[in-house]
Amino acid sequence: MVAEPYDAPSLIRTKRDGGTLDADRIGWLIEAGTRGAVTDEQLAALLMAVWFRGLDADELSHWTTAMIDSGERLDFTGLSRPSVDKHSTGGVGDKITLPLAPLVAACGVAVPQLSGRGLGHTGGTLDKLEAIPGWRAELGLDEIRRQLEEVGAVVCAAGPGLAPADAKLYALRDVTSTVDSIPLIASSIMSKKIAEGAGALVLDVKTGSGAFMTDPAQARELAATMVGLGANAGLPTTALITDMSTPLGRTAGNALEVAEAVEVLQGCGPADVVELTLALAREMITAAGVDEHDPAERLASGAAYRVWRSMISAQGGDPDAPLPRARETETLTADRDGWLGRLDAYPVGIAAWRLGAGRARRGDPVQAAAGVVLHAKPGDPVRAGQPLLTLHTDDAALVPRAVEALAGAWTVTDEPPAARPLVLDRVSAEH
Amino acid sequence: MVAEPYDAPSLIRTKRDGGTLDADRIGWLIEAGTRGAVTDEQLAALLMAVWFRGLDADELSHWTTAMIDSGERLDFTGLSRPSVDKHSTGGVGDKITLPLAPLVAACGVAVPQLSGRGLGHTGGTLDKLEAIPGWRAELGLDEIRRQLEEVGAVVCAAGPGLAPADAKLYALRDVTSTVDSIPLIASSIMSKKIAEGAGALVLDVKTGSGAFMTDPAQARELAATMVGLGANAGLPTTALITDMSTPLGRTAGNALEVAEAVEVLQGCGPADVVELTLALAREMITAAGVDEHDPAERLASGAAYRVWRSMISAQGGDPDAPLPRARETETLTADRDGWLGRLDAYPVGIAAWRLGAGRARRGDPVQAAAGVVLHAKPGDPVRAGQPLLTLHTDDAALVPRAVEALAGAWTVTDEPPAARPLVLDRVSAEH
Repeated sequence: MVAEPYDAPSLIRTKRDGGTLDADRIGWLIEAGTRGAVTDEQLAALLMAVWFRGLDADELSHWTTAMIDSGERLDFTGLSRPSVDKHSTGGVGDKITLPLAPLVAACGVAVPQLSGRGLGHTGGTLDKLEAIPGWRAELGLDEIRRQLEEVGAVVCAAGPGLAPADAKLYALRDVTSTVDSIPLIASSIMSKKIAEGAGALVLDVKTGSGAFMTDPAQARELAATMVGLGANAGLPTTALITDMSTPLGRTAGNALEVAEAVEVLQGCGPADVVELTLALAREMITAAGVDEHDPAERLASGAAYRVWRSMISAQGGDPDAPLPRARETETLTADRDGWLGRLDAYPVGIAAWRLGAGRARRGDPVQAAAGVVLHAKPGDPVRAGQPLLTLHTDDAALVPRAVEALAGAWTVTDEPPAARPLVLDRVSAEH
Repeated sequence: MVAEPYDAPSLIRTKRDGGTLDADRIGWLIEAGTRGAVTDEQLAALLMAVWFRGLDADELSHWTTAMIDSGERLDFTGLSRPSVDKHSTGGVGDKITLPLAPLVAACGVAVPQLSGRGLGHTGGTLDKLEAIPGWRAELGLDEIRRQLEEVGAVVCAAGPGLAPADAKLYALRDVTSTVDSIPLIASSIMSKKIAEGAGALVLDVKTGSGAFMTDPAQARELAATMVGLGANAGLPTTALITDMSTPLGRTAGNALEVAEAVEVLQGCGPADVVELTLALAREMITAAGVDEHDPAERLASGAAYRVWRSMISAQGGDPDAPLPRARETETLTADRDGWLGRLDAYPVGIAAWRLGAGRARRGDPVQAAAGVVLHAKPGDPVRAGQPLLTLHTDDAALVPRAVEALAGAWTVTDEPPAARPLVLDRVSAEH
């Protein structure tokens, strides 16, 4: 038995009492925690102490480094074109990765998107793409690299080798109510993104009822924290703060969102999805230092759609196969004339989840066809009896609880609501 | 699988965010925690949240009740004489239970002392009595009851059936740095004391360098909290706040303390041990409503010593057997003339522990003969070269680290130090 250099209770006490932990101590806590020499109950107590006391900039940097060092590091900088990664903090109807990755690839940038599956009210990108017949999420590192060279974009499952300490800490945070801590969120996201080894990173930090950070000030703080961590680690990082008070686009659900993403790639689709896709594409190509292409032109010309088709085919998917359709639908209507004043993202996310689009437990299956279609967006005029939402599911028994989730989710007003900007702010290291 | 009525993360979040938990929720957390349905990492996070947020009076009462309800309840109120329990928060050289239990029994009160073994720098009463050849700590409930009737006093091991939730929470607190929380300490002590079922309780809450609560204001708060819990549970409780800045008496160690206790029972012994024994005895006989005896007289007359002999014999011990003596001793001397200005309890406790009198891990053996003898107490005049302390151990290799612990433990001053009162305060429900 090798003697441990520190004892966990003393380090927990230091953090609990508002002290700071140095690089060696944080490195040991994370390393010994992954190994089991620091027990899960000690990690849980430490996480709660961090929830209360926070981590200062140095501690956060050491914490993130220790999580990266717990696993393997990839390196996509040796490709023939610059690589740029993108991460969204998650929202309802957030299918942006689907049109964005091929669009940015169509502009000459390599876009590796190592993603996760959804848990709770926000969907997972892999769950969405798995609605496409034949498409597979699991790729080896060589396949990823080859697809990045040949197609330019890849969306696939992040293997368990990236920051395994984060997987362990996240599982603990999930059951101990220590998820909503800015340093813990920032280190969790950034450890994986830094380990992925792209040349630059663009973050979409969402705020509003359907986002993790409901408060814009907190979203800005999270964005600034992650941008700082990226800069420290030599990963140029910028962030857009974007609105998630209402769902993005007109769909929430797996196959429904794929269909909407294809519309965008074919030059149509909802204005907000197009706007955010273009805003993030511009950030990414600027970060890559590539400026010969206008992303709006690449979308309109069909270049991005061609990359999409290649990207799906390369992973076994049939881009022309019909998408699954739900066996049951139920439509909710407006009860008066007026304008749709608001339509909250969170209850729509919960409804889609309850209809079968999401999972309650890791490993549960999801329904490809389940979800919610919005027939109106905030600011649209509506008439009494007009359809507002249609619920899609394969299991009619799931409808009542989805309808329940939507109680009070929208308001029809006498005056049109004030327009809300979609991109609220941009955070970069120069700020 | 029975559905649980609550989910642990929500309840942890409530406490974390400064909310209050009601009786049902606290009852479930403790019950499901003991059963394992609330996991150890969830309990650890909850304990850290309680460390930060505290428990209000109602929550504390529910928490204590839930810990009592996790196990069995004894009842000593049906004896032919009133029963009074006593608990000390622990200190260096704190052998008070040894003379106190037989003294109070000699005054007509039944004194059940269900005790524990020592861990860390304060000794355990059972470890001390086990230095007496033949004496055994484990008694059945019938034996305890019979000895209380026939002898009047019993000191024995508390079985695992009393407040098992506390045993579990205490083990978690120990490894997660959540021990030093007034509500958690108060509920831990009082759940066991209330479950023991004596008719009244007297607490000795220590403050100073050798005590758990180094700060007198915190000691008072802890005392008031425990007195309040006792009153709520129908267990009349009073507390003395007593000084633990210097060791009690002239010995710290198992056999050494037994010998000193016997001196006190024979009418001699150090003044501070006699003073505190009498002060606590008066509290206990007042609590019992017994007033025909003066404890000082019972000590002087040998009545208490006779009870001691019966008490030891009843548990297989030989009160006349020679006590173990250490194979090695080392004496530390004063380096100048003057007065012993201070002699800190904590380093003396650490030294005795390192000499073998205490254990680092539950279940480790202890040396019966190891410990520290003080040749001077604060306020005594000393001369250069005069012995101040003698270290006793069976293993000479343990001496250097004990000496190390004593660096700076005392000061020899030019003027005698101000006298310090031993009993600093009394806390009762009427306050």
